[in-house]
Amino acid sequence: MGSALLSEFGTEIVIPICAVIGIVFSLVQWYLVSLVKLSPEQGGCSPRNNKNNGFNESLVEEEEGINDQNVVVKCAEIQNAISEGATSFLFTEYQYVGIFMVAFAVLIFVFLGSVEGFSTKSQPCTYNKEKMCKPALATAIFSTISFLLGAVTSVVSGFLGMKIATYANARTTLEARKGVGKAFITAFRSGAVMGFLLAANGLLVLYITINLFKLYYGDDWEGLFEAITGYGLGGSSMALFGRVGGGIYTKAADVGADLVGKVERNIPEDDPRNPAVIADNVGDNVGDIAGMGSDLFGSYAESSCAALVVASISSFGIDHDFTAMCYPLLISSMGILVCLITTLFATDFFEIKAVKEIEPALKHQLIISTALMTVGIAIVTWTCLPSSFTIFNFGTQKVVKNWQLFLCVAIGLWAGLIIGFVTEYYTSNAYSPVQDVADSCRTGAATNVIFGLALGYKSVIIPIFAIAVAIFVSFTFAAMYGIAVAALGMLSTIATGLAIDAYGPISDNAGGIAEMAGMSHRIRERTDALDAAGNTTAAIGKGFAIGSAALVSLALFGAFVSRASISTVDVLTPEVFIGLIVGAMLPYWFSAMTMKSVGSAALKMVEEVRRQFNTIPGLMEGLAKPDYATCVKISTDASIKEMIPPGALVMLTPLIVGIFFGVETLSGVLAGALVSGVQIAISASNTGGAWDNAKKYIEAGASEHARTLGPKGSEPHKAAVIGDTIGDPLKDTSGPSLNILIKLMAVESLVFAPFFATHGGILFKIF
Amino acid sequence: MGSALLSEFGTEIVIPICAVIGIVFSLVQWYLVSLVKLSPEQGGCSPRNNKNNGFNESLVEEEEGINDQNVVVKCAEIQNAISEGATSFLFTEYQYVGIFMVAFAVLIFVFLGSVEGFSTKSQPCTYNKEKMCKPALATAIFSTISFLLGAVTSVVSGFLGMKIATYANARTTLEARKGVGKAFITAFRSGAVMGFLLAANGLLVLYITINLFKLYYGDDWEGLFEAITGYGLGGSSMALFGRVGGGIYTKAADVGADLVGKVERNIPEDDPRNPAVIADNVGDNVGDIAGMGSDLFGSYAESSCAALVVASISSFGIDHDFTAMCYPLLISSMGILVCLITTLFATDFFEIKAVKEIEPALKHQLIISTALMTVGIAIVTWTCLPSSFTIFNFGTQKVVKNWQLFLCVAIGLWAGLIIGFVTEYYTSNAYSPVQDVADSCRTGAATNVIFGLALGYKSVIIPIFAIAVAIFVSFTFAAMYGIAVAALGMLSTIATGLAIDAYGPISDNAGGIAEMAGMSHRIRERTDALDAAGNTTAAIGKGFAIGSAALVSLALFGAFVSRASISTVDVLTPEVFIGLIVGAMLPYWFSAMTMKSVGSAALKMVEEVRRQFNTIPGLMEGLAKPDYATCVKISTDASIKEMIPPGALVMLTPLIVGIFFGVETLSGVLAGALVSGVQIAISASNTGGAWDNAKKYIEAGASEHARTLGPKGSEPHKAAVIGDTIGDPLKDTSGPSLNILIKLMAVESLVFAPFFATHGGILFKIF
Repeated sequence: MGSALLSEFGTEIVIPICAVIGIVFSLVQWYLVSLVKLSPEQGGCSPRNNKNNGFNESLVEEEEGINDQNVVVKCAEIQNAISEGATSFLFTEYQYVGIFMVAFAVLIFVFLGSVEGFSTKSQPCTYNKEKMCKPALATAIFSTISFLLGAVTSVVSGFLGMKIATYANARTTLEARKGVGKAFITAFRSGAVMGFLLAANGLLVLYITINLFKLYYGDDWEGLFEAITGYGLGGSSMALFGRVGGGIYTKAADVGADLVGKVERNIPEDDPRNPAVIADNVGDNVGDIAGMGSDLFGSYAESSCAALVVASISSFGIDHDFTAMCYPLLISSMGILVCLITTLFATDFFEIKAVKEIEPALKHQLIISTALMTVGIAIVTWTCLPSSFTIFNFGTQKVVKNWQLFLCVAIGLWAGLIIGFVTEYYTSNAYSPVQDVADSCRTGAATNVIFGLALGYKSVIIPIFAIAVAIFVSFTFAAMYGIAVAALGMLSTIATGLAIDAYGPISDNAGGIAEMAGMSHRIRERTDALDAAGNTTAAIGKGFAIGSAALVSLALFGAFVSRASISTVDVLTPEVFIGLIVGAMLPYWFSAMTMKSVGSAALKMVEEVRRQFNTIPGLMEGLAKPDYATCVKISTDASIKEMIPPGALVMLTPLIVGIFFGVETLSGVLAGALVSGVQIAISASNTGGAWDNAKKYIEAGASEHARTLGPKGSEPHKAAVIGDTIGDPLKDTSGPSLNILIKLMAVESLVFAPFFATHGGILFKIF
Repeated sequence: MGSALLSEFGTEIVIPICAVIGIVFSLVQWYLVSLVKLSPEQGGCSPRNNKNNGFNESLVEEEEGINDQNVVVKCAEIQNAISEGATSFLFTEYQYVGIFMVAFAVLIFVFLGSVEGFSTKSQPCTYNKEKMCKPALATAIFSTISFLLGAVTSVVSGFLGMKIATYANARTTLEARKGVGKAFITAFRSGAVMGFLLAANGLLVLYITINLFKLYYGDDWEGLFEAITGYGLGGSSMALFGRVGGGIYTKAADVGADLVGKVERNIPEDDPRNPAVIADNVGDNVGDIAGMGSDLFGSYAESSCAALVVASISSFGIDHDFTAMCYPLLISSMGILVCLITTLFATDFFEIKAVKEIEPALKHQLIISTALMTVGIAIVTWTCLPSSFTIFNFGTQKVVKNWQLFLCVAIGLWAGLIIGFVTEYYTSNAYSPVQDVADSCRTGAATNVIFGLALGYKSVIIPIFAIAVAIFVSFTFAAMYGIAVAALGMLSTIATGLAIDAYGPISDNAGGIAEMAGMSHRIRERTDALDAAGNTTAAIGKGFAIGSAALVSLALFGAFVSRASISTVDVLTPEVFIGLIVGAMLPYWFSAMTMKSVGSAALKMVEEVRRQFNTIPGLMEGLAKPDYATCVKISTDASIKEMIPPGALVMLTPLIVGIFFGVETLSGVLAGALVSGVQIAISASNTGGAWDNAKKYIEAGASEHARTLGPKGSEPHKAAVIGDTIGDPLKDTSGPSLNILIKLMAVESLVFAPFFATHGGILFKIF
């Protein structure tokens, strides 16, 4: 078997060091962003040109009839309002979810503890009956602890992301006065703060947890890593509520604001006269930022847990090879370093000078990080793994070479890039698919919707083939471990992925603030250009999220099957098949709930906005201030109330199926939900992204073709706005929540597997 | 084991007699419809009131300023135009498809013949190696023959359906002058003609084919019924092209006509000034009637074949118990008798007097037929089956009691009813779901679409549970045979199902003719009421079609797995899993193609219609006649051209996967396509149906709530029209084509199973 180059002591040091480097780097980025001052004394300029250029800049603004000092004050005010709204929503959300989390933690403890009747005696291990392992009660306690840790880390990730984003948005607006390049760097740096903080934080907490648990578990790695899976469950549970709650919040506000503001009153997006405008901007931060942060953190935590739990029953765990065991964490550590270098390409090595350079710059980030990471994976693989080892493969041990494992990780990484580019092709208005959709607006909203839906369906094809190839290769080489590390490969550049993903909503907010602060048209054009690129990168980010979710949940599913001691999941048994077909239905049920929630909440918002326009005198003329707070309250109440049923559906399904129908049916449900959910998630995200950018294509009027469709307010543009509004819940609520659905059900099944295997399937046992 | 009450001789007689009864009954119905005269001399009245009442009626019409004689002549003219358009389209379609069918027949012969190198020597049987069976070459020849027979029967079914519908539409219009009840009976009788002709014809051809093949095969029932599966493949292949081609035709015309006529020019639906109006009405007949006829015939043929092929390797086949072997055909025979009685309830026992009685009358048809059929199944089961027998269950023989088989058929039947009622609940505007969708039109098209999509997703839940329960029970009792007979149970009332299904497009056409012939508003209101009920029944019909398709394809899938000698289809092998995820993607790919096709064809139609309105002077004033023929040609050309890629996708996928990746991956593909396709098909059909009826709800203004949304032309109504237009391709093209996708891939795999099992999977063999 041979042994790895990196010693156990080396591993113990390398991982935390990389994590700390990531955290330090993100703090540096934060410092650089903070140099853009939001206090009026300094004129809203970065220090380098504080004295001379700053004055100059404000002169330019002055020429356009806007008092610079006033603008900065206004920006700061709006930023405060958004930040307060977001913070208060997240606190409310966390209160409700907190209660749920505690209840669920109790459930975990009771269910897992009952596996051996709360006995405190050591038991024979699950996979190696000759050895003794810690009691099920220990697994129950430590799973509960790691569950809570995962949940808290997820909360911290989402909350910090939101704080950074609301810190950065007004600063991006102010920088936009100096040019698109400066604004881009501010937005991108802020995204990087979030990306690195999340990646490093997730890694560090997981690493510390493992080391602390090891104090109790000692050499019982099987039990140790089984308990660690709770971390993934905690992360994902929070992510579910974050995504769904945040998604409903943001889209209720967005749809409501657009329907009355843009469609009925013909006022621009983010116009300060619109009562829902603050709620809309708050929504971007709680939905797209905090929700997405939790989501990707969840994916990352789960793929690490899936890989670790399989490794613990493979030769790494059996031989107690700590370095090889930590391979997933070492990959993530390398990812932080690679992303660090990649970020410098965007912020320091090159400079954005024109609008058309923004999208390529973001794309280059993906390519650079992927190329560098391929080398990084090779380094980690050859230094940390023995040249040959065995991997647990549903009851047998399969011999795997280190180059094979390298291929598993690398194929996941590159599959992610392919998915990213395909997503870009289908959602960017630089290519024919979105242009065709825009063109179909000539004949009205109906053809726009038909073409958009068709585009979304079509955009599924290549990503699915990419995922299928990745699965086939990694599955064939290294069974479930291969799948898990392929997922990790896809997520290894998570810091860069999150940076370009968070960049979008920050730019969106920046535009909103520019509009509300009454800044010149020129500034708004710059932030719009940033935002258009952000739409595409958001779609790319969602592509990554769903691609990795597919791999992660398959790996978790495999780990669950192993843990539940099922030898085959045969489609041609009634138990499995009904699970499969019902599982494939769940994403529809879930989407129905979330879409309807957005629709109902948006209706309420529309009524409130209309009411304000009708009853507040002078509102349309800009003489009176709208009542922003009521709209914020409507979004908050709706999302808190409406996130419970879909959340319960996802959280309770594995429990109900496992307890009443048993592990075979549950296997079917997981497989069905996975293969069906992936498709809807991809198509929903891309359809929504395409509609959004088709609208932007018409609005920007950058080509001859686009100008024949515009300008704003033309019939084709109105049709495009309808498509965009329909796409909102698809791309920001139901679509991205589906990845959590498939991951969460799988990780929950894995955590409860010991319970289901002993006490599950009571319905079939009775009859 | 015991033997059945019904002797072999009795079986030989009973089946053809029932088929002939069905044919005679349909001819009687046709005769009754034909009594409504379309020649002007007789005033367009039924003979009973030919002399007096007819005169009276025409006086009433006269009072409204319409010359009765002229109206009848006009109706006849329009009917001729529709009939000619439909006939010419179908002939063009059949020419193209004919070439394909011949090519595919050659492929079947070559592939199946090559299994044993075109040897003419007898070979050991597949399932019982001790016995000798006919050579693979015989299977090749007879499969090819039965394939062509199935295709021809499907063509005949679709064509006759279209002929009957175009014969009946103008007659329904004329009868509508006498009241809604008379019109209903005419439309319903015409539907019944089609229903009974199809059911009886399908049964008779299959029965004769079996008896003819038996002359060669003798006691080799395994080979005989393997060759018979070609009948299902032929039927389904034709159905695919019929559904897709017809679906594109009808919706290109419909969407095109609506977008210019209703939205831009503000003229009513079916206005004779609209150049696309004839194409639209032709489309109803070639898409909804001919397409649906072929589709349900295909389901029927396939479920019979699936049951027969499994029975041939069960004790029925091994013991050569002909009566038990023919159980599937006997169920269908009983179905014809039961539907005959059921039809009398609608046409003779009760009379429709008011608009609000229409929908209940149609619903009662479903309930009565299901209740009677339950008794019918019991009679067939206890007279035709031994009390105990064995069924082939993936390599073993499973003992089954006759009451268990009764439950299998009955649960399929009742699951169909449940699916029907759930579909009705979600698509009829008598219930809250559609009313909510209509209500959401207040805030515009976007919320309408969001609510409509959510409704479609939600409507999937109960049908999937119904299908899952049916599968679980029938699978547990009698393995794949149980599933196949459950599908047959659902389809046993096909004659009634088709009757109420065909009734919809006939009423739709009748309304169109009334409008075009310039008949009074009152007539149009009556046909609209018929049509609204027809929309719901069409959705119910689609529910049946998709429910039965799910069961049928599972049964075929099981038969395929048995024939390909796979012992398990384990999701947790890379071959199967990639098949599963790619299979789940296929319905999206397929839908993308069909939706885009409708969109593109509709765009062309819109341009042509606009061109005519702009260039033909006096068209809007009704002074000049539009050029209907060009629009018909656009629809024809588009549908012929556009049906090829989706058709090729479905037909080639099993071949490519089987040849290159082998039977395991193909199993995954079939399972994935099945569980994912069912959901999209149901949600697409119901979303479309709901939008259509939400629009009708607003137009009809039958309740206080509905009146607040209307009238025609109001903003909510415009939003509803947009939803309706989007729903058109969903409910009439992509949705219903998906059932064919899942069935066809399964039956094709079954037919080619011997080839795949010997020569398939070359890619995996190479690497």
